[in-house]
Amino acid sequence: MTRPGEDDLIARYLAPLATDPGAAGLTDDAAVIAADPDHDLVVTTDAIAAGIHFFADDPPAAIARKALRVNLSDIAAKGAVPRGYLLTLALPSDWTEHWLADFVGGLAADQAEFACPLLGGDTIRSPGGLVVSVTCFGSVPREAAVRRGGARPGDRLFVTGTIGDAALGLHLRRDPAAAGRCGLDPADIAHLHDRYLLPRPRSAAAAAVCGFASAAMDISDGLVGDLGRMCRAAGVSARVHAERVPLSPGAARMLAADPALIGTALGGGDDYEILCAVPPDSAAGFTASLARAGIAVAGIGEIGPGPAAVTVVDAGGRPLPLGLGRYEHF
Amino acid sequence: MTRPGEDDLIARYLAPLATDPGAAGLTDDAAVIAADPDHDLVVTTDAIAAGIHFFADDPPAAIARKALRVNLSDIAAKGAVPRGYLLTLALPSDWTEHWLADFVGGLAADQAEFACPLLGGDTIRSPGGLVVSVTCFGSVPREAAVRRGGARPGDRLFVTGTIGDAALGLHLRRDPAAAGRCGLDPADIAHLHDRYLLPRPRSAAAAAVCGFASAAMDISDGLVGDLGRMCRAAGVSARVHAERVPLSPGAARMLAADPALIGTALGGGDDYEILCAVPPDSAAGFTASLARAGIAVAGIGEIGPGPAAVTVVDAGGRPLPLGLGRYEHF
Repeated sequence: MTRPGEDDLIARYLAPLATDPGAAGLTDDAAVIAADPDHDLVVTTDAIAAGIHFFADDPPAAIARKALRVNLSDIAAKGAVPRGYLLTLALPSDWTEHWLADFVGGLAADQAEFACPLLGGDTIRSPGGLVVSVTCFGSVPREAAVRRGGARPGDRLFVTGTIGDAALGLHLRRDPAAAGRCGLDPADIAHLHDRYLLPRPRSAAAAAVCGFASAAMDISDGLVGDLGRMCRAAGVSARVHAERVPLSPGAARMLAADPALIGTALGGGDDYEILCAVPPDSAAGFTASLARAGIAVAGIGEIGPGPAAVTVVDAGGRPLPLGLGRYEHF
Repeated sequence: MTRPGEDDLIARYLAPLATDPGAAGLTDDAAVIAADPDHDLVVTTDAIAAGIHFFADDPPAAIARKALRVNLSDIAAKGAVPRGYLLTLALPSDWTEHWLADFVGGLAADQAEFACPLLGGDTIRSPGGLVVSVTCFGSVPREAAVRRGGARPGDRLFVTGTIGDAALGLHLRRDPAAAGRCGLDPADIAHLHDRYLLPRPRSAAAAAVCGFASAAMDISDGLVGDLGRMCRAAGVSARVHAERVPLSPGAARMLAADPALIGTALGGGDDYEILCAVPPDSAAGFTASLARAGIAVAGIGEIGPGPAAVTVVDAGGRPLPLGLGRYEHF
């Protein structure tokens, strides 16, 4: 079976995704992002690799969507709106056109959903397994990008969506019998698996983040570890009330059956929710803006003075010994 | 021996490279490129992988510089000035701090030389050998980026520098005895090896390209193959006079000793020179501008009407049967 060369592969599969005029239909070595006097450009890049960030036999469309979505999550967390992306594919020697067509189908679906066209990229042979590297661009009003390091003592801490689902989904994937021990129903299992497979970038939260947050980041390496980074960037401390951390029904069931899994839920990776510090005066505006966008949000704690530290407390205010390191994909 | 985790690796080795305020010292998930009402942003991404684009035991600094320079070459070919870059490192499991320090030293030297600071990136474990992916940004006056597809019949064709050195350097690396057969002296050998190891992006040519060229691209996959792409992008033909193609002394010696190597010189990859189509009226201004920038340039042929095709002719105007495919890194 012959496979297309690089030019044919680009023309046949990737050029149809390059709908932005700046991409020149992928017939150039570079894309052009036109000057915009009113907006800064937010740029981020994240790569995912077979066996590390996904399983090599995951559906190709899901791998593609995960690669794009982990980047869209960063863009949203800075308060920015997607503008476009570059895709670098390092393909293992056994790739097939069928695999690639499915992969491109996943990209097509997501770039339509998130209004984020392909602008360019590169296709190379991988010296090992598949590596997918995406650079994503977002647009934000001038000087309005929300940084990780802006949290101040007194700020309230919020997270979108639910926490821990992806890490618990990965736990179930590695230990399927845990589902029975925790009394999960099929809908719980499907939800947790799906949250590991497919991040839900909170693009619709961008306006609320941009308008009200003093600091924001997406949670990709675990709530507690990423909150620690937010604290170190600003030289502040944070206190999280464990019982206020929003959990899906399946996650709540797993933690009720096995309380030690709270370390997985609060420390495991791949949430792709947004963590925000919001000044007290702005909290009502922030939550109202998210409500209008249809995004669930929960207040989980507050920022205090330095030195940088994260404390998770139970309902009685007692520190929980989670024994957490940071989740390292690396 | 313990190695640093991802956060420490970034703080210790990469943050010192992030001198642009938009990089926030690499303490954020995204960089910000401030709005510039007078300039478009040119973006390009190219990845290189061990065993495909370089040898795994090449000096780490040389690998780093090659990764950055192949991107800088694209930026220059669009007529743009470097603005910054993102770096994604997929590291094999056996990386060492010593290796990384040397790699970062190469980046530091080049980003100083080309005024192109690190803006952000990602560091992951590779499922195989090293993959280095760079996204590079350039700044160009509004609507002045030079596209690959702008060549028109009557335009003259120019290339910067010399052609074929890198491909002949790779040839020597694979067949060291060829140096003796071709009567190369040590300076020739060193020059050809070096041109394979270290591209020389023509950043100083940006103003000339931007000011005078109707079409431009960097030559990364071989002069004839890349010229074919330029022709297809515009629906035009091109005629190249083989004896006008500029050769280094070593390359000239190799072709004199073994005329069949002209296929390697004109079809092999990694030149990283700029190929331009220039309207006849602009040719004098173009070459004068490059002379002021200290960059050698040679007129090698002309653009004709479609259909898209490339003909290489000898001094008598007879087509040379080069039997060239396009050089595929892929």
